[in-house]
Amino acid sequence: MKAHILTIGDELLIGQTVDANAAWLGEQFSLLGIEIVRSTTVGDTAHTIHTELDRAFEDADLVVTTGGLGPTHDDLTREVVADYFGVPLRVNETLMQMLRDYYERRGRSFPEAARKIALVPAGFELMDNPVGTAPGLWYASANDARMIAVLPGIPQEMKAIAEAALLPRLRTRGDLQTVEHRTLLTTGVGESSLQEKVGDLSEYLDDALKLAYLPSTSGVRMRLTAYGDDRAEAQSRIKQLEQVLRERVGRYIFGTGDDELEAVLGDQLRERGLTVATAESCTGGFVAHRLTNVSGSSDYFVGSVVSYANRVKVEQLGVDPDVLAEHGAVSEPVARQMAQGVRTLLGANIGVSTTGIAGPTGGTPDKPVGTIWVGYADAQGDHARRLQFVKDRTVNKELFSTSALEMIRRQLQRRAASQEPA
Amino acid sequence: MKAHILTIGDELLIGQTVDANAAWLGEQFSLLGIEIVRSTTVGDTAHTIHTELDRAFEDADLVVTTGGLGPTHDDLTREVVADYFGVPLRVNETLMQMLRDYYERRGRSFPEAARKIALVPAGFELMDNPVGTAPGLWYASANDARMIAVLPGIPQEMKAIAEAALLPRLRTRGDLQTVEHRTLLTTGVGESSLQEKVGDLSEYLDDALKLAYLPSTSGVRMRLTAYGDDRAEAQSRIKQLEQVLRERVGRYIFGTGDDELEAVLGDQLRERGLTVATAESCTGGFVAHRLTNVSGSSDYFVGSVVSYANRVKVEQLGVDPDVLAEHGAVSEPVARQMAQGVRTLLGANIGVSTTGIAGPTGGTPDKPVGTIWVGYADAQGDHARRLQFVKDRTVNKELFSTSALEMIRRQLQRRAASQEPA
Repeated sequence: MKAHILTIGDELLIGQTVDANAAWLGEQFSLLGIEIVRSTTVGDTAHTIHTELDRAFEDADLVVTTGGLGPTHDDLTREVVADYFGVPLRVNETLMQMLRDYYERRGRSFPEAARKIALVPAGFELMDNPVGTAPGLWYASANDARMIAVLPGIPQEMKAIAEAALLPRLRTRGDLQTVEHRTLLTTGVGESSLQEKVGDLSEYLDDALKLAYLPSTSGVRMRLTAYGDDRAEAQSRIKQLEQVLRERVGRYIFGTGDDELEAVLGDQLRERGLTVATAESCTGGFVAHRLTNVSGSSDYFVGSVVSYANRVKVEQLGVDPDVLAEHGAVSEPVARQMAQGVRTLLGANIGVSTTGIAGPTGGTPDKPVGTIWVGYADAQGDHARRLQFVKDRTVNKELFSTSALEMIRRQLQRRAASQEPA
Repeated sequence: MKAHILTIGDELLIGQTVDANAAWLGEQFSLLGIEIVRSTTVGDTAHTIHTELDRAFEDADLVVTTGGLGPTHDDLTREVVADYFGVPLRVNETLMQMLRDYYERRGRSFPEAARKIALVPAGFELMDNPVGTAPGLWYASANDARMIAVLPGIPQEMKAIAEAALLPRLRTRGDLQTVEHRTLLTTGVGESSLQEKVGDLSEYLDDALKLAYLPSTSGVRMRLTAYGDDRAEAQSRIKQLEQVLRERVGRYIFGTGDDELEAVLGDQLRERGLTVATAESCTGGFVAHRLTNVSGSSDYFVGSVVSYANRVKVEQLGVDPDVLAEHGAVSEPVARQMAQGVRTLLGANIGVSTTGIAGPTGGTPDKPVGTIWVGYADAQGDHARRLQFVKDRTVNKELFSTSALEMIRRQLQRRAASQEPA
């Protein structure tokens, strides 16, 4: 089965609302093994909606629309869909009674505009709306050549109808292809380098087994997708590819699916009974912010000193003023002293530090914008790494903070490896 | 001018990523008076992208694509676009040299896959990417019958190219309808209260002059829009409405347009020669992060102590352990002592503190999730405010941090008012 998602509403086109409905439906459908061919957003204009239905059914068997089902003059979906299928709109008496009851229960008079909600295209079935007044609509032509589900645009109502009536209806159809997905999350390696390290996969990949690289400021995700008639087979192909990838680039993989680096790290710290503190200059508290975005982070996160002024580096973190003067704030010894300093000051097992130039100004030929030293200290000693990123301040702060988290991850990985039996 | 937005990527179709690019572009275009006819998402499949370009140009003069510009095998946009316009892809030597330099500066060998980024369809112009390696592409056919802008899918890169190269290019075209926009930014007041305080505007508003309230975690924006054939008239109507709004709710308005609260606040602090330090518990460094997102913030931001563990509140910030035991960490006296403590410790004029329950767990009947005390201290004394927000941790951290910034803004406003001649 191939589906087209059609979201309707001027507010989506002009960006007043981000279209989260299409993403949610896309996820639900792909979990059912329904291929989404295309997803389109159009405004509240009858002929555009009509044209898009035409185009959608060129490739898809199933079209799902959201939006335009309300009582106001700019809600056109019901009329356009009836017109598209060449059937009249008829008042559904049961629905009309439900609407009257709804307003009566609330002690409000029945608004004339609400009458529109009781109009149903002839031959369409209703899908119950457990959380609102406008029901969803369903229609399947002979041999299921053209199926349509018409849902409201309010996300809660759309989801409630889909979960209660639409998805169960689709789940019972036997003709669905099985699709399995798995996402491996990496960090500490760029997209091109990762692909190079992964190397040739031509003996594994084909039309029914795909790999996509998705970069972001917290790392590159690898998405594995397998299609098949049989779930077990699809899963086994994904598993095989995952194993190859883990053999080749496993050291960069920190998690799967929706895992967050800060949460994975948090679990590892908690498991090993380790605590962490951060000393932040160029990240300005962002590393601490990310660590504390995880509920329960107080188990392992002690605190942070954001030493934006050099004075704070010296007075609070104990950075040697001579070293600071000689090497500058963005330097290896300062990064190391900051990491050791915060570890001692706040009494944590691990100290991590950042000192760099987020930009857009402040760069020099030796230390251009985007330069960062990330420091690490624990009871065994300290060290620092220099990295070079981009020119944008916001992006740099994100990449800098990811590097600091990655520094902790790498050390925990080394510890684990060194404790393995030889 | 009519535009079609075409976002490309399997991850969008299957709902792994919510398509925020289309919304952002939609907003920017509608601010320029460009009508968005339709917005479509397709997967990483050459023939679907090709078909969609065909359909897009049926109604639109301008097509903007995002995604599929990376170096990996599933990045197809550049090839499909070249094919669609019937032009060959050629290596751009300048771009190739930039890429080589990019990797050399990072001390990394040039990955073969990156070579793809230097391929440019013949006749296309490059649009500089200030934050990444892949530039945007631009092409306009004879008489501008078909224009295309090809942008990367990573939001930061897409926005940076659009702001630096695409939007200015479109702004210079004379055939756009005159639309004037102005956004007044408020903070410290909810959407309903703001609307109530604004009161009746029916004598000002009509089809050609509109006001929208747009709530966010950093405050409610009021967007004023005027349409017209004549720029001067539209501007004068906007100005009149702005004056009415400023008379009624001016004390909540901290800026206009894209102003950020943290930047406006920074300017005020710099102007008055004041410095600030933060002591953060529930915000976990997020207030410091926001303050340091502003370039040049080292002029007034000294640093922060993130006192996640209570021990840090006592040992570093000098919170009285008896007060902590008696009132709990989330209390007025602790918030005040934290603010005074960090002010003294880091030697700043102003200290601001946050202590609260971000959630989702940790609430009590007296102090439910979403409770926060924001503390403020300067040479004149200290005080704290209790506020109550929602159940979501991420949203709370944002609202909490806005409250801390708003606390500083309010105090600066009071100072200014008290120094005005009577």
